[in-house]
Amino acid sequence: MPQKIGKTTIKTTQMPSICAYAAVAGKKEGEGPLGKHFDILYKDPNIGQKSFEQAESVMQKDAVNTALKKAGLTLADIDVILAGDLINQCTSSAYAARGSDTGFLGLYGACSTMAQSIALAALLVDSGALTKAMAVTSSHFCAAERQFRYPLEYGGNITPTSQWTVTGSGAALVGISGEPPFIKAVTIGKVQDLGVKDVNNMGAAMAPAAYDTIKTYLRDTGSEPRDYDLILTGDLGKVGSLLLIELLSKDNIDISGNHKDCGMMIFDIENQDVHSGGSGCGCSAVVLCSLILSNIRQSVWKNVLFAATGALMSPMSVQQGETIPAISHLIHFTN
Amino acid sequence: MPQKIGKTTIKTTQMPSICAYAAVAGKKEGEGPLGKHFDILYKDPNIGQKSFEQAESVMQKDAVNTALKKAGLTLADIDVILAGDLINQCTSSAYAARGSDTGFLGLYGACSTMAQSIALAALLVDSGALTKAMAVTSSHFCAAERQFRYPLEYGGNITPTSQWTVTGSGAALVGISGEPPFIKAVTIGKVQDLGVKDVNNMGAAMAPAAYDTIKTYLRDTGSEPRDYDLILTGDLGKVGSLLLIELLSKDNIDISGNHKDCGMMIFDIENQDVHSGGSGCGCSAVVLCSLILSNIRQSVWKNVLFAATGALMSPMSVQQGETIPAISHLIHFTN
Repeated sequence: MPQKIGKTTIKTTQMPSICAYAAVAGKKEGEGPLGKHFDILYKDPNIGQKSFEQAESVMQKDAVNTALKKAGLTLADIDVILAGDLINQCTSSAYAARGSDTGFLGLYGACSTMAQSIALAALLVDSGALTKAMAVTSSHFCAAERQFRYPLEYGGNITPTSQWTVTGSGAALVGISGEPPFIKAVTIGKVQDLGVKDVNNMGAAMAPAAYDTIKTYLRDTGSEPRDYDLILTGDLGKVGSLLLIELLSKDNIDISGNHKDCGMMIFDIENQDVHSGGSGCGCSAVVLCSLILSNIRQSVWKNVLFAATGALMSPMSVQQGETIPAISHLIHFTN
Repeated sequence: MPQKIGKTTIKTTQMPSICAYAAVAGKKEGEGPLGKHFDILYKDPNIGQKSFEQAESVMQKDAVNTALKKAGLTLADIDVILAGDLINQCTSSAYAARGSDTGFLGLYGACSTMAQSIALAALLVDSGALTKAMAVTSSHFCAAERQFRYPLEYGGNITPTSQWTVTGSGAALVGISGEPPFIKAVTIGKVQDLGVKDVNNMGAAMAPAAYDTIKTYLRDTGSEPRDYDLILTGDLGKVGSLLLIELLSKDNIDISGNHKDCGMMIFDIENQDVHSGGSGCGCSAVVLCSLILSNIRQSVWKNVLFAATGALMSPMSVQQGETIPAISHLIHFTN
């Protein structure tokens, strides 16, 4: 039964855990530093489908089915899928869930969705409302580029502060198995907006959200950065990561020694031409659902804070002169 | 602490209830049969804003603040806002939540979002994870038309089976107050797709989802339609409502005597030129957060099933030749 220990920070008491997980990704992601940790790598960006959006749905299905296979389960054993993506009306997720006899909860938290999805799954499982819940998110570079920026054929240039949308999907099965990685607590993020308007600098827009959520979690639990083996952000990239460390240091919170960012881990930033790093709902999902959860399971790390971040604007809101609100939800994983 | 009584049907045990609620709506909705029940009616579709989308955010804020005022609370008293809308990247909701020191969970269930949002809020409050949660959704006719169909200036014609997006927002504060309307149980819906491709006939696409969810709830609770004073669907409209009744009657479930549809209640269908009826995330939200909750509170109705429905396609998925998946989440309200 979840126990509220702050306005938006909640501890679990039944030790919900990630019973199985899987990560699937594209060619470029496969060529990056984490390539060997992914369960499936696709050579073809269309994955045999007629559109990039349909390919993204296939990735979600593959991630879910791979996680289920590892757990020795089928979709019929799962109560509810909690899913999200970046595509308008979250169609990649809804179309992926078609034909399953499983409940579906659509979520939208932009690139923070994987943390939102695991947080909700963990709270619902911890309370007994659900027995097994699947958290899954995805993004696809080609689908995201044409929706948020320009069609690929246009060949638009991007700025050094911009980020590269990850092609991939991560799925995590939440249940009560007695085996790590356990979900010890979560913090639900608040919408933060410090006035950044540059859509080619999402890292700057999202850093204040990660700052607020990490600070809130440390305060609500009376803990310090050194209590964690790793403080992992979603996809702040190079620019946003520096800003986050700077913002926290002004409050005398030093995470510089144990901070990593999924957007900087998934690509070789110097050599893969991804500018400030990776991004997208799939970015933190595939990094989490491969190296990170494996290392927690194998006791390499015992306490990990996972604070995925999302920029909540749309191309239209930006065209209308709006600033970019952002959010970050946090999960505390333990071994 | 929530008690699972079916794969996706969950009973509450702490009697979470709607502590306060509010509905705000546009001019046309004000001229409809429920006009006098709404808390705020706007004459200007822009509500003093530069864009329809910004106007929609203002409606969400007004709905939330009106509900809070009725409860004698401020936003600082609320742990988390669970919000959703139809606009790409759910910006109406995210921008409405900016500047609040309150947690935010973005949801996407198309026109079913109000039921999804109340269901999650009720489960989180029932388990003790949250103390007070605000469920809010919205839609705006002008914003939805230009995003999903044509800009208003184009003057496109619509078919008799099509529906009219409601301009409005409904907010419901979920907590434990000891006062009705209580949330007794919920069913989380499954994605249903029977192959309907006509975006001007959402009622037909959504009826199978309402059918599946209502049937599931009756089965999981061993109850019959006559156990409920009202079985309320979200926005099936004329066409979808007839289909729902027909689908259920094939399983010998007769809801014809106590079924109503928010999309048919909000407008005078014969005289307001809305074709098959109202629709949009705001449709079921404003009908629920006015007449329906008031009548439950005043014991006019003692048992009400609220099954909001959503069509999960996007203009792009339809252009790509896809069918329209749909979902329906259900809440059982009691006095």
